[in-house]
Amino acid sequence: MNNKAITKRDEDFAKWYTDVVRAAHLCDYSSVKGCMVIEPNGYAIWEKMQSILDSKFKELGHVNVAMPVLIPENLLKKEGELVNGFAPEVAWVTMGGKKELEERLAFRPTSETLFCDYYKDHISSYRDLPKLYNQWCNVIRWEKETRPFLRSREFWWQEGHTIHSTKEEAEKETKQMMEVYKWFHHEILAIPSITGIKTEKEKFAGAEYTLTNEALMYNGVALQSGTSHYFGQKFSKAYDVKFLNKDNKLDYAYQTSWGTTTRMIGGLIMVHSDDFGLVLPPKIAPKQVVIIPIGDDNEVLDLANKYNEELNNNNITSYIDYSDKSPGFKFAEAEVNGIPLRIEIGSRDLKENKITFARRDTREKIVETTNIDIVSYVNNLLDNIQSSMYKKALERRDKLTFEAHNLKEMEDILNKQPGFIHAMWCGNEECEAKIKEIKGCKSRLIDDSLDSIDDKCVACGRDAKHHVIWGIQY
Amino acid sequence: MNNKAITKRDEDFAKWYTDVVRAAHLCDYSSVKGCMVIEPNGYAIWEKMQSILDSKFKELGHVNVAMPVLIPENLLKKEGELVNGFAPEVAWVTMGGKKELEERLAFRPTSETLFCDYYKDHISSYRDLPKLYNQWCNVIRWEKETRPFLRSREFWWQEGHTIHSTKEEAEKETKQMMEVYKWFHHEILAIPSITGIKTEKEKFAGAEYTLTNEALMYNGVALQSGTSHYFGQKFSKAYDVKFLNKDNKLDYAYQTSWGTTTRMIGGLIMVHSDDFGLVLPPKIAPKQVVIIPIGDDNEVLDLANKYNEELNNNNITSYIDYSDKSPGFKFAEAEVNGIPLRIEIGSRDLKENKITFARRDTREKIVETTNIDIVSYVNNLLDNIQSSMYKKALERRDKLTFEAHNLKEMEDILNKQPGFIHAMWCGNEECEAKIKEIKGCKSRLIDDSLDSIDDKCVACGRDAKHHVIWGIQY
Repeated sequence: MNNKAITKRDEDFAKWYTDVVRAAHLCDYSSVKGCMVIEPNGYAIWEKMQSILDSKFKELGHVNVAMPVLIPENLLKKEGELVNGFAPEVAWVTMGGKKELEERLAFRPTSETLFCDYYKDHISSYRDLPKLYNQWCNVIRWEKETRPFLRSREFWWQEGHTIHSTKEEAEKETKQMMEVYKWFHHEILAIPSITGIKTEKEKFAGAEYTLTNEALMYNGVALQSGTSHYFGQKFSKAYDVKFLNKDNKLDYAYQTSWGTTTRMIGGLIMVHSDDFGLVLPPKIAPKQVVIIPIGDDNEVLDLANKYNEELNNNNITSYIDYSDKSPGFKFAEAEVNGIPLRIEIGSRDLKENKITFARRDTREKIVETTNIDIVSYVNNLLDNIQSSMYKKALERRDKLTFEAHNLKEMEDILNKQPGFIHAMWCGNEECEAKIKEIKGCKSRLIDDSLDSIDDKCVACGRDAKHHVIWGIQY
Repeated sequence: MNNKAITKRDEDFAKWYTDVVRAAHLCDYSSVKGCMVIEPNGYAIWEKMQSILDSKFKELGHVNVAMPVLIPENLLKKEGELVNGFAPEVAWVTMGGKKELEERLAFRPTSETLFCDYYKDHISSYRDLPKLYNQWCNVIRWEKETRPFLRSREFWWQEGHTIHSTKEEAEKETKQMMEVYKWFHHEILAIPSITGIKTEKEKFAGAEYTLTNEALMYNGVALQSGTSHYFGQKFSKAYDVKFLNKDNKLDYAYQTSWGTTTRMIGGLIMVHSDDFGLVLPPKIAPKQVVIIPIGDDNEVLDLANKYNEELNNNNITSYIDYSDKSPGFKFAEAEVNGIPLRIEIGSRDLKENKITFARRDTREKIVETTNIDIVSYVNNLLDNIQSSMYKKALERRDKLTFEAHNLKEMEDILNKQPGFIHAMWCGNEECEAKIKEIKGCKSRLIDDSLDSIDDKCVACGRDAKHHVIWGIQY
């Protein structure tokens, strides 16, 4: 445990965040400017995220591959919008050994170009389609300002890339994968994210449209956490990816891509954690239960071992803290590291057949008799923690969700407290730009399935076309 | 399935190898010179390798982390031997966005330097030790000649890095991890590898000594598959990694590293595969059983479904080939892809209560009645395949293991048939160099636990010090 105190969340949110990251040993900056080291506690969360998402992807028929990390400049440049979008952020390899390269190579900022290059040689007929690929890898974007997990030059992600013989199938895939991200946020991360479509200005470079999953942090700032892009035939035309369709005619194939990154770890922290350190929903916690024996009586240790074994045998990740630290120190350490449930077993309590459970989320202590069925008791408690963390996050999101009917109202809201701001929009980029002047507020997403809240655009007062949710972002 | 024929293994081994890689869709070269695309069939093998090794590493107390992919030049250069060893092979990032970098950054060829840089700030006392880290990642070495899986500019690996307060503990770790690689080769990959210590000339740049795991391919060429390095205090001195020991004195910490790579996939192919394509030991095969229904009678499909479900419920990876291809095509496809066991269910056979099993390793067909207990029958058969593949590989290794007592004998052996050549050595690098003149033959490893086969050095005739196994390598 890091002994330095954690800044209070309500005092200085940014400092609180980096304090939690440091105190829970999640990641650290390295000698490599803007690049992070993901430490064991942080990496274990990423491994659990990977394992849950990867199973879901495979259930839906996707297979993993590995594309090269370097992209020749001419290959990258074939799709103009993409390269324009990423050009300022590309890291270039220009030397191999002692030789200058004839053509410089980009460290992948994303891999659409490489997948297209591969498809080109491996797809000839509709019988070869669809191909449903994914890869887990690192990417580099040469950011100027960086923050642990949220924005760093190197980050880790998964990028799904699929190719289809029809528009319908590709669009269905785009929507399906957004549903996966939404499910993952709501059910696993206990984050009540919202989903919808990006405006033209905010969509991915080269996409026909982009679906997005947006989470709201405790401080009311939004975090884009997972996007799914429909490319139509754009990339296939740029990279000449053709196939013989059912009518025996050559056609360009339809593509999608979708990704989510290590920044979700930052989201987890900023939605759930508190002044005592990390708080993790049980479904994503690498270690769900810590058992702390107080004293070293045989009775205490026997019960600790018995519980530990039973829990681990029933798919609950549990461990015993056997270290020679004091019980108080162990409690604090388990707390700062975000272990969802702590079981304290002391010899004095045991004489009265009592043990104590401490919930990390509410910090509530519950005394129980040793007669309970430990597995079903802990399962229930973990379920309860998971759902009450979701509920709390939802209440916070609702509290920080506002409505604005004109620019003045929007400004007033943002001056007081950022959040998700519902406001109607005419569809004009000038109005988007005007809103951005208020503290950099951007459209998070369009969700026209929501009821209209006005007839007129919040910025210009002309006829409104879309129900947009706006907000300040990380 | 790729319809192009596979070259015969005994006709042209190198061509046979690339034919198998292509026909089984394991990997492909990309537009990025010297970099490969690992295709789904190849990546699934890598995922299974990762999953088995990762569990074993964790069982032994290791935790995963992620270090940056880029290393500032000055950091890389602190340990002179390491940088000299890798300098000709480093890819350099010199530009970020449109700006030239003030200091160029190496794409990691290996990460000792980054781990040292991290240890330096995170270790102060013996109480912080040991740290047992591992990472799964990609590395780049700017090779001139490349071959699928065996040698490519980018490859994927795990690199374990550990740091200890005593020499004894670090040396124990070095040995333990070599035992893990040996176990993995013998038990999982069915490859009867040999292990020992590298000569000074062949050890890892910067190591005090290197333990190695060496496999022998079908053609008698050796493949280094996993090394474990003991660094002593070398890196700690170069990177100033000190800690307060139990006597309250500052001391340099003891380090190790150990790694194994995607080249093991190449080894798997070159040890076990045949003229009909890939052959995989069941323990590493991503899909162990394919069920092929012949015809679409309900009875046939019902039994296929029943078997498939029972097998998958009992930890045997099985799938049904429902595609509209002909049975013969399906058989050939399962064969080229190396599925260890094929179950053929046809309506005519079913009338006589018969089904057919086809082993991939021997291509033997076994007719059984439908009365068998499918799970235990298949489990037995898979065990049998695994052990008979190991036995066959061991027989091949023994057949290609020779003894040489002088240079003339060594030359004669290598002219006829490469293999593992046992020969005594005086310990002099000049003799090593002389042997290398014979077709590039190098010492694979020293194993002084073996009986002496001579008093004198195979090259110079002076007193021998070590029992060395020599061979030509990939």
